[in-house]
Amino acid sequence: MNHDEAVIVEYEFEASTGDPRATAEFVALEQTLEVPRAIVDEHGLGDWVGEIAELHPASPETDGRPRARVRYRAELTHHSVIPLLNLLIGNVSIVRGVRIVDLELPAGVLASFRGPRSGIEGIRAKLAVPLRPLLATALKPRGASDETLARVAGEFARGGGDLIKDDHNLADRSVSAFRDRISRVRDSVRANGSTLYCAHFAPRREEFEAALTAVEEEEIDGVLVEPFLLGLDTTRWLAERFSGIVLAHPAATGSLYVNPGQGIDVGVLLGTLFRLCGVDGSVFPHAGGRFDLSEAECSAIADRLRRPLAQIAPAWPLPAGGMQYERIGELVEFYGRDAMLLIGGALLRDEAPLAKSTERFREAIERATR
Amino acid sequence: MNHDEAVIVEYEFEASTGDPRATAEFVALEQTLEVPRAIVDEHGLGDWVGEIAELHPASPETDGRPRARVRYRAELTHHSVIPLLNLLIGNVSIVRGVRIVDLELPAGVLASFRGPRSGIEGIRAKLAVPLRPLLATALKPRGASDETLARVAGEFARGGGDLIKDDHNLADRSVSAFRDRISRVRDSVRANGSTLYCAHFAPRREEFEAALTAVEEEEIDGVLVEPFLLGLDTTRWLAERFSGIVLAHPAATGSLYVNPGQGIDVGVLLGTLFRLCGVDGSVFPHAGGRFDLSEAECSAIADRLRRPLAQIAPAWPLPAGGMQYERIGELVEFYGRDAMLLIGGALLRDEAPLAKSTERFREAIERATR
Repeated sequence: MNHDEAVIVEYEFEASTGDPRATAEFVALEQTLEVPRAIVDEHGLGDWVGEIAELHPASPETDGRPRARVRYRAELTHHSVIPLLNLLIGNVSIVRGVRIVDLELPAGVLASFRGPRSGIEGIRAKLAVPLRPLLATALKPRGASDETLARVAGEFARGGGDLIKDDHNLADRSVSAFRDRISRVRDSVRANGSTLYCAHFAPRREEFEAALTAVEEEEIDGVLVEPFLLGLDTTRWLAERFSGIVLAHPAATGSLYVNPGQGIDVGVLLGTLFRLCGVDGSVFPHAGGRFDLSEAECSAIADRLRRPLAQIAPAWPLPAGGMQYERIGELVEFYGRDAMLLIGGALLRDEAPLAKSTERFREAIERATR
Repeated sequence: MNHDEAVIVEYEFEASTGDPRATAEFVALEQTLEVPRAIVDEHGLGDWVGEIAELHPASPETDGRPRARVRYRAELTHHSVIPLLNLLIGNVSIVRGVRIVDLELPAGVLASFRGPRSGIEGIRAKLAVPLRPLLATALKPRGASDETLARVAGEFARGGGDLIKDDHNLADRSVSAFRDRISRVRDSVRANGSTLYCAHFAPRREEFEAALTAVEEEEIDGVLVEPFLLGLDTTRWLAERFSGIVLAHPAATGSLYVNPGQGIDVGVLLGTLFRLCGVDGSVFPHAGGRFDLSEAECSAIADRLRRPLAQIAPAWPLPAGGMQYERIGELVEFYGRDAMLLIGGALLRDEAPLAKSTERFREAIERATR
């Protein structure tokens, strides 16, 4: 195996899985050839099986769990999303007590991915906001008329909000209803400010091309997709083809990371892998809100979205969920400048009218950034 | 809300989530409008929020966990896969201590789905095997030459195996390499028997049409897809468009059900939802092998694939993983006639040549069915 061109996956094992070396060997075989070892040897295919690079005994830093780093031949990824995901979370996602805690992809694999088109710099340039964190919101609620939604979006724009994205629960009965709604929201946003608008993009497969054409022809700034529902490779393809912004929503991904000791690190999934698929920003629930991520996990997502990664541009963390006005200072300090604070309920529930409330939140962000 | 046309979702809560009514109310709002209750009332949108239909206190049958049945307005599904999945496992998948244990879809929603094209009856008809369980295997190992793979498939066919599917780790460097490989396997299978062959279908999105054309032109019997990697709606679309067999592999789904008290029941996911998306058979690891499903869970998957479900045809359970010759009788008794036993390693490792070993397994199935 050419070690410069290997995919390194680090696993953490629960004590219940027994001997860490045996578990690592099981995983390294299961994720590659998935046949008894005797068959591997008989066919002379040992090179295709993952190789244990390091074994670390349980330690206090790993909550008493042993870890193993396994090296996989880069060809197993086929430089493509579905084989890469199969290598990472194909069969092993069905195993209790095994969690992927780190992933290193070699330059040769990374080179096959375009990554974010706009990313941090691109969205800053569109907005002409060079330094401060951005203020984003979700367009809600589902069930409201297009007129109401357009008015809400317009008020957010008037208050100086930076980006508004459709709630992932928004859906339309047809492509033409989708086109009507998004063009109406766009008109209202443009009439009131320079806010960017991302429409929820989740068409039935038959209507994919027509829906994308609607987004392009109506000159909508971007889309919000759920990569785990749309398909990660479809997300990658969309991000390559569509010149606008692509934001990712974490729908259906939670079980992969909220169960301690099982699944995959949230930073690897919503950070590294989503970024690889070309998303310009990744939404996730900030710690201490309605969901179950820790501050360390939120920090890891932000880090993986923004750290250097070969030629792949950095992307925006979009922490969301229960973000109160009083916490703006703390949030800006926590995430730094390159974050988009996604504030939903707190804006809508504010006593002031939405435009005024948006202004207040944006001022708080500006104050916190000085 | 029209109660005949509601989607019913039953949740089980961990004790750590606190008051079950409050948790149910949180989930019912989170999965629909995702705004503070005051905003719902202000916009007069109460009808769009899930309604608690029943609350059951913790009982011994539910391992001491309380349950709630929540009724959702059918329009929230848009009779389409992505909104349905958002309703079920959008945000709530990020919450610890909440698990979906049951799902009832109204006739109006079910009517929008074609379901399996071949299903149990269709595959029986193709094989002219009216009664007994079927013998299937996975074509392996990754890394072997096309020639070796074709020979392995041919031996399985010569031994009277019913269906061979590519391992989900098999991938090809291009569509033409894919076409070469699958046509070679097909030739070898047809020269040796009447076995059905399903090719692993996981092309990059750019090559989707060309890969599907290759499958169709080469008259391959069917495909194996990973719905959670390809996208569930793309799977549904593929099953509507492609006239061959569609089998589903559970890659990347495990974290959603192997963590007790979180996620979604495996029967609902790999049974009901995959069947709705049109798969003719659903692969899952049988209890007692290398993976972490219980007998009750395997039984639930099989039941949900086969039980009456409006106009939607029943589909095949394909239990797999560590299935030994000695267990055939037990497996046939456990799953009944309408199951495809997916035997991989045990066949390959058998001392007899593969054709002979296949014959032995098939005879064991026939014996067990009498």
